[in-house]
Amino acid sequence: MGRTAESESGSELELEPGTVFLVGSGPGDPDLLTVKAKRLLESADVVLHDKLPGPEIIEMLPEDRREDVGKRAGGERTPQSEINERLVELAREGKSVVRLKGGDSFVFGRGGEEAEHLAAHEIPFEVVPAVTSAIAAPAVAGIPVTHRDHASSVSFVTGHEDPTKAESSVDWDALAATGGTIVVLMGVGRLPDYTAALREAGMAPETPVALVERGTWPGQRVATGTLETIVDVRDEKDISPPAVTVIGDVAGTREPVVEFIRNEYGEAADGGAGGDR
Amino acid sequence: MGRTAESESGSELELEPGTVFLVGSGPGDPDLLTVKAKRLLESADVVLHDKLPGPEIIEMLPEDRREDVGKRAGGERTPQSEINERLVELAREGKSVVRLKGGDSFVFGRGGEEAEHLAAHEIPFEVVPAVTSAIAAPAVAGIPVTHRDHASSVSFVTGHEDPTKAESSVDWDALAATGGTIVVLMGVGRLPDYTAALREAGMAPETPVALVERGTWPGQRVATGTLETIVDVRDEKDISPPAVTVIGDVAGTREPVVEFIRNEYGEAADGGAGGDR
Ligand SMILES: C[S@@+](CC[C@H](N)C(=O)[O-])C[C@H]1O[C@@H](n2cnc3c(N)ncnc32)[C@H](O)[C@@H]1O
Ligand SMILES: C[S@@+](CC[C@H](N)C(=O)[O-])C[C@H]1O[C@@H](n2cnc3c(N)ncnc32)[C@H](O)[C@@H]1O
Repeated sequence: MGRTAESESGSELELEPGTVFLVGSGPGDPDLLTVKAKRLLESADVVLHDKLPGPEIIEMLPEDRREDVGKRAGGERTPQSEINERLVELAREGKSVVRLKGGDSFVFGRGGEEAEHLAAHEIPFEVVPAVTSAIAAPAVAGIPVTHRDHASSVSFVTGHEDPTKAESSVDWDALAATGGTIVVLMGVGRLPDYTAALREAGMAPETPVALVERGTWPGQRVATGTLETIVDVRDEKDISPPAVTVIGDVAGTREPVVEFIRNEYGEAADGGAGGDR
Repeated sequence: MGRTAESESGSELELEPGTVFLVGSGPGDPDLLTVKAKRLLESADVVLHDKLPGPEIIEMLPEDRREDVGKRAGGERTPQSEINERLVELAREGKSVVRLKGGDSFVFGRGGEEAEHLAAHEIPFEVVPAVTSAIAAPAVAGIPVTHRDHASSVSFVTGHEDPTKAESSVDWDALAATGGTIVVLMGVGRLPDYTAALREAGMAPETPVALVERGTWPGQRVATGTLETIVDVRDEKDISPPAVTVIGDVAGTREPVVEFIRNEYGEAADGGAGGDR
């Protein structure tokens, strides 16, 4: 079962049979796969994936060695427990298995749960870190998540919880109080709720905000506004998932640099970069 | 000047003369370079770097096309202004220039400042995102920075400021209040200060903490403890920079999985993984 692959150092790296590789794909541009992820995708016995790695990377996967575990026949999402079981099953068949996630597997990617399940079933696994969309999508749009003059911390947070619910585990007051950059993932739908929560927490309405949709995909779009205007901007430009929301002064550093950015990903919904040039 | 390099899609990608590439190296394992970073390092006219990319990646750089801008002859650090000027100078000579940083250039990497300087001098640049040590060093040690059961946010913060100083821009109270994971970079020296600040802010003394030194380098070491014990652990194991500090319940998920992690990076200072096996 195990194939061999040439490692960077030139030595033969054995894709050990019965091992699971928890691999992140990066934000979507195949050029932003790591060297290791690319090699594993080319040589693993089977790759379990969903849609988040994006169209370009999914197209690269050989059809006879991939399984889409994103949605089931009926259209609803495959439960995590089923994916966990499938990983164990394939590993026990002696296969080298890649579990491929969009971005990094350990940033809102359930990699931790998969690792725990594998260990509990005594399946050896390797972690292959990746470029997360939370950093990369803003970066290619010209927005550094930290900046000496603007932010000495950055927080990544999930936006899919209802911030008005008592059991919400995200503390928007505390996030606002950090004074650092806030990057919201899974946060297109609830943008009105958490921008309101952050304003109530005392953040200035003129705080710059950027939305980066499908960062590094061929159809990347960037839209900018403020804590006050961004909901309208989202609606006008019809920004939809996957997208990250960047909140903080760093979002304002895009405008003076965007003219000189040469990354070629899609268009700029704010007329700034990409296909517009 | 401009060389050509084969892009992923098979098309010819021109390394445009007079362009600066702001490239992250990832945490240190050459296998965790992105495909794009690797190609640019092989084909750029000149690579400006310091020591943070780690020994293995620096060894890969061709000697006649690299400039170490980390330390000057006297031993003190090259001022950022000098690096900025050198980037402009080389680009104006028509060279394709890679500015290589450890981890991701836009996470405590001064990439934002470099981008601003280049734009102000009308130098075109491209941003090449990378794997940040803030996520990767914990990940290969078996620690996911977010986890459904433990953390719905993660904050990256610089630890090199004195938390008792009035002008400190890091609000440890607010970070503690987020309830999410805290990853401290540049935080080996001031570990006693900010662990004390977090305890004063109300974090439980038994909160799990992990130190990951030289993550993904051949000499990686991992040491674990709690908010109460970690300073002693650091001293006993003599943990030194570069290292990240991971604070929060996720740091406690390493122990039950570590036996099954097959990443082969160095030894575990807590006796858990790596060369000890
Ligand atoms: C379940 S989370 C997974 C995050 C992923 N593990 C990572 O590190 O990027 C899904 C969210 O990631 C963000 N995301 C993933 N890929 C993206 C991309 N290419 N551009 C913008 N946002 C993206 C979106 O916020 C999306 O809702
Ligand atoms: C100036 S910051 C640069 C961070 C870098 N841009 C990144 O994204 O990883 C330097 C700090 O990064 C962390 N660091 C960088 N490489 C590391 C590694 N391989 N293992 C652990 N920590 C690392 C350490 O906290 C170090 O003090």
